[in-house]
Amino acid sequence: MMTGRFVSFEGGEGAGKSTQLRRLAERLREAGQEVVTTREPGGTPGADAIRQLILTGDADRWGVRAEALLMNASRADHVERLIRPTVARGAWLITDRYADSTLVYQGVGGGLPEDELRALHQVATDGLWPDLTLILDIPEGEGLARATARAGAEMRFESKGAAFHAAVRDGFRQRAAAEPDRCKLIDASGSVEDVATRIWAAVQPLL
Amino acid sequence: MMTGRFVSFEGGEGAGKSTQLRRLAERLREAGQEVVTTREPGGTPGADAIRQLILTGDADRWGVRAEALLMNASRADHVERLIRPTVARGAWLITDRYADSTLVYQGVGGGLPEDELRALHQVATDGLWPDLTLILDIPEGEGLARATARAGAEMRFESKGAAFHAAVRDGFRQRAAAEPDRCKLIDASGSVEDVATRIWAAVQPLL
Repeated sequence: MMTGRFVSFEGGEGAGKSTQLRRLAERLREAGQEVVTTREPGGTPGADAIRQLILTGDADRWGVRAEALLMNASRADHVERLIRPTVARGAWLITDRYADSTLVYQGVGGGLPEDELRALHQVATDGLWPDLTLILDIPEGEGLARATARAGAEMRFESKGAAFHAAVRDGFRQRAAAEPDRCKLIDASGSVEDVATRIWAAVQPLL
Repeated sequence: MMTGRFVSFEGGEGAGKSTQLRRLAERLREAGQEVVTTREPGGTPGADAIRQLILTGDADRWGVRAEALLMNASRADHVERLIRPTVARGAWLITDRYADSTLVYQGVGGGLPEDELRALHQVATDGLWPDLTLILDIPEGEGLARATARAGAEMRFESKGAAFHAAVRDGFRQRAAAEPDRCKLIDASGSVEDVATRIWAAVQPLL
């Protein structure tokens, strides 16, 4: 009988999360695991409809309180209708972003108190955290340049200033320091191959 | 110098809230007050966009957790961009529904614990409650028939069953009993004129 696993990728814009997520999924499938990949905000029809509200429009379309609530509304649907059922049937669920992003973007970046954000998380997910969170870390200028080049219409976050993105990087590093058992800080500089090797090593304890 | 006031109308479907809200607004304007009327979910461009997500689609489009978070996201925008600025400049702000509806529909009706819903309210509004809440009470069968006749596309709540609506009525009566200083239970049976007279009496202490 297989044991389901819940893994999240986190980090600032352009850290290489989606590339590395695909690589990890392929490698796990080669190892015989069933893997479902997804991303936040979004991942289900309801969550994707909320994603459109969150990510389009001007940088100041939403105040930080509305933004945090929308993120959690989207996550509630994602958890109830995709994440929990997938893990319950014994598959791996790997998501590009989850609740650590909210603690960093709306907490460290937006100024909402961490205890208020944790209260939202409790309502949204009934307290569900990943088995493993991979935090991809690169200097923020490098990542932002990559992300802005490809963002298209969904660039509300990319359009925020450099100080915001520096705070975000620092916030993710703090997350890794605060919860070292669940959150692994991955050096995401260097070749795709090198980073994939570091990630594969971090995943071993779950296999 | 005028003192701003924040008043909410609450109650089940078809209790006559919008008619009575208009009557009260007219009477206050005749008395020389500036009055802004609004409704939830919605009331600002952002909140209205969220309203569309909440009120359209199948009755089970959203789980109760996502629904409570969307309601609060909509409210956060409404409070920040309309309610607080209006009251701060000395006007009356009268809204058709506010946070008691969430305590009743997603709490009593949907089963979410009251303390979790109060935590959402804190994040959404920084703890803002009305000066006065008028809870319009009529037998639930009567109100629902009226509401269903006019609902059109926005009928996700009207389409829930009779037991749900009985629980909603009971929930609003409990709200009035739990917070008697802020919440006044108004007998909403009888003529529009009679109900308006009862409401005007309840509003006197704020004038």
